[in-house]
Parts: sequence; C-alpha cells; structure tokens
Amino acid sequence: MPQRIWIFGGGDLEAWALEELVRDDRLVGADRGAWFLVSNGYRPELSIGDFDSVTAEEAALIRENSASYADCDAVDKDKTDLELALDWAIAERPAEIVVVGATGTRFDHTLANVQLLRKASEAGIPCRIVDARNEIRLARGGERTLVRKGPYHYVSLLPLAGEVRGITLTGFRYPLNDATLPVGSTLGVSNELLGESGVVESASGDLLVISSRLDRPSADARP
Amino acid sequence: MPQRIWIFGGGDLEAWALEELVRDDRLVGADRGAWFLVSNGYRPELSIGDFDSVTAEEAALIRENSASYADCDAVDKDKTDLELALDWAIAERPAEIVVVGATGTRFDHTLANVQLLRKASEAGIPCRIVDARNEIRLARGGERTLVRKGPYHYVSLLPLAGEVRGITLTGFRYPLNDATLPVGSTLGVSNELLGESGVVESASGDLLVISSRLDRPSADARP
Repeated sequence: MPQRIWIFGGGDLEAWALEELVRDDRLVGADRGAWFLVSNGYRPELSIGDFDSVTAEEAALIRENSASYADCDAVDKDKTDLELALDWAIAERPAEIVVVGATGTRFDHTLANVQLLRKASEAGIPCRIVDARNEIRLARGGERTLVRKGPYHYVSLLPLAGEVRGITLTGFRYPLNDATLPVGSTLGVSNELLGESGVVESASGDLLVISSRLDRPSADARP
Repeated sequence: MPQRIWIFGGGDLEAWALEELVRDDRLVGADRGAWFLVSNGYRPELSIGDFDSVTAEEAALIRENSASYADCDAVDKDKTDLELALDWAIAERPAEIVVVGATGTRFDHTLANVQLLRKASEAGIPCRIVDARNEIRLARGGERTLVRKGPYHYVSLLPLAGEVRGITLTGFRYPLNDATLPVGSTLGVSNELLGESGVVESASGDLLVISSRLDRPSADARP
C-alpha cells in the first residue's frame, strides 16, 4: 500500500507537527526540519539539504540518525532544500505528501513553498501544507475537490497563479456559482462550511484552498 | 506635497510598526489595526472595518479617537477590511502606501494582502508591505525597479500571478539574464544584493520582490 510521505521543512515546527503521524508514515527532513525530527527521537528515511541552518554537531547527529543523508551544498543551488525534498517525495509516488515546517517568518520561503503545491498537483499526488493554524491545498481546474471541516473554522479561496474561472461552491456559507477570482480580489477570504464538508469546483486555474483555525494555543505556552 | 499613507491591518503589529513613521504621514486603521494605533496614542485619519476583532469598548475608543470612522459591517462583505482601506488610500493618490499588520498566522489573509499589491500597482502608486522581518513589493513587467539593501540580507523574487518573463537582474549575487520564472520554481529564492542597491527588470508579468532580514529580535523579547 502506498504510504504517506511527510516532509519537515526549516520553517516553524512545534509539537503540533508530530500529532498526526502514524506508524507507517515515511519521514523526510529538509535542512533544519531534519534536526527537528532527530532531536524528537525520529529517524528520517532521508535527510536532505545544505544544512546551513544547523550546527556542525547537529549535522553530524542528523547524519548518524538518518537512513539516508544527502548534502546538497554543491548539487543544485537553483532549488531550495524543500523543493529538493519534494522532488524526491514525488518520485516515490506516495498516496499523499504532507508538508510541515513550510511556513514561518521568512515570507519568501513560505510563499515559494505554497507555490510548490503546483508541482505535486501536476504529478497527480495529493499534497497539503499544514502549520499550527492553517491547512493549505490546491484545487485544480476541471476537478472536484472535497473539503472537510476538521478542526478548521474558515475556508478561504485564493488564486495561486492567475485568474481562476468557473468556480462553484457547494456547502459553503457564501456560495459562488460560476464565479471568477482574479489575483488581487479578497472575495474568497473567510468563507465557512455549513456542515462537515463541502465541494470546490472550477473550470480552469489553480485555486488555493486555505483552511484556518479560529486560534490555537501555542505548543510553546508554559502552564 | 502628496504624503505617504500608512495602513495598519489586523495582522501582527508590534513596536517595529511605528519606528518609520514621520510627522506628515497619514494613518489609516483597518479593524484591529485601528486599535493598535489608538492604543499607542495615535489618531487615525480613518478607521475602517466591521470591527469584529475588537471589543465593544475598544470600538468605542477607536470611534472617539479617529478623525473619521467607517463601520463596514453591512457595506461590502465581498472585500476584507484591509482591501476597503486600500481602496480608500488609492483614491487619495498618495506618494506611497505602506501597509503594516498585513501578515500574521492566518495565511489566507496574509496571501490576500500580498495579492492586493497588484491593485496599488495598477493604480500606479508605489506600495509595500512591511513586517518584523520582511519587505514585500511588486515589480511590474516592462518597468525597472530599484531595490535598496537597507536592513535586509536576502532578496527573493517570486511570481505573483503566473509566469514572469524576461527577468534581468543587475547588482545581484546570483545574476539572471532574460530568465523566466514560473509559479512553482524556487530559483529566485535567497538572492542577495552585492552592494547597496540593485535593479530588477522584467519584460512581462508581476514579480514579487521580497527582502528579508537575517533575523531580528522580537520587540516582545524581555531583557
């Protein structure tokens, strides 16, 4: 049975990132994300990156505790560590790819990682980015995408890469019927599901489906 | 002389957001951003929003301490408070618009706000989003955009709304010459200026120019 692959990136990571893991999940660490896995007692199947964001001691421990280790310092400076990890994961053809540690205070990395959803989508592999507050997925033109409520309150729809046409929503508080969303409109922000699930359809274009929690206490909060 | 307009949104705001303000700057508060201004002793020229993110008491104080107050609860549910504030600011034709409180843990709001840069750009008004770590601007196709180093280390280039063609960089560590950046490539991430400034040019497409600091101690940090 094809398993899930989890990619741990160098962005924000706390205890929430480990909550959904099950025994069969395969783990990949990209740069500082590999250190997060190893320092929490996990053994990554692959640790990949130029490891410029960890100390030499941490890099040695990552190497020691990973099934496979790829130092990409000189390999491909045209791609971020997370893109290299995603390329590897896509080639493995898993049932799903979940990316954590993809968001953080560096907005360039965060946005680049969100745009990478397109790569998985084009390869036909379900992929989502999860952080402490959000779940980010891509709904492709011509497809029906099921959206489950889960722990999330809002569901926002934003174009990823240009105008999205023929958007029809079923089961949402603010319905859309054959609507167009250009880049630069906030019409799709802060929608909500009426029940436990809804459906997003569009005729053409890549539409981001961003679910967000009302708020969530930080795992860092001291009692 | 046309002044700058600062928009304070409902995202993350700390002391850094007030550091660059000068006497002549005009201030607009959107929803919780208005409370940030008022609670720091500033008098917004306009406070706008549905004010669902502040208490009734805070809303009353905002109203009392703003030159003008627009409760948009029933006005236009198709736009976020920040888009309404930006529409107002663009109509004033200022020399520049600076948006703070545009980023935070709600990724949908953050991305929608970044996509709004296109609205200001189409109106021909320089606009930038600033947060504790990043400065985000838009370089339009067919134009030369000057990028200054300032307090930033990295400069990343990412397409906003589809492929950007004919990108040429001058004064950057990793040069590009007539390059194409599709959505979903991380090639443009983590570039650096060689000196105090550089130039970004492209033939067509909207290119985000994202400058980021190496890191910056949080204004919340206790000594």
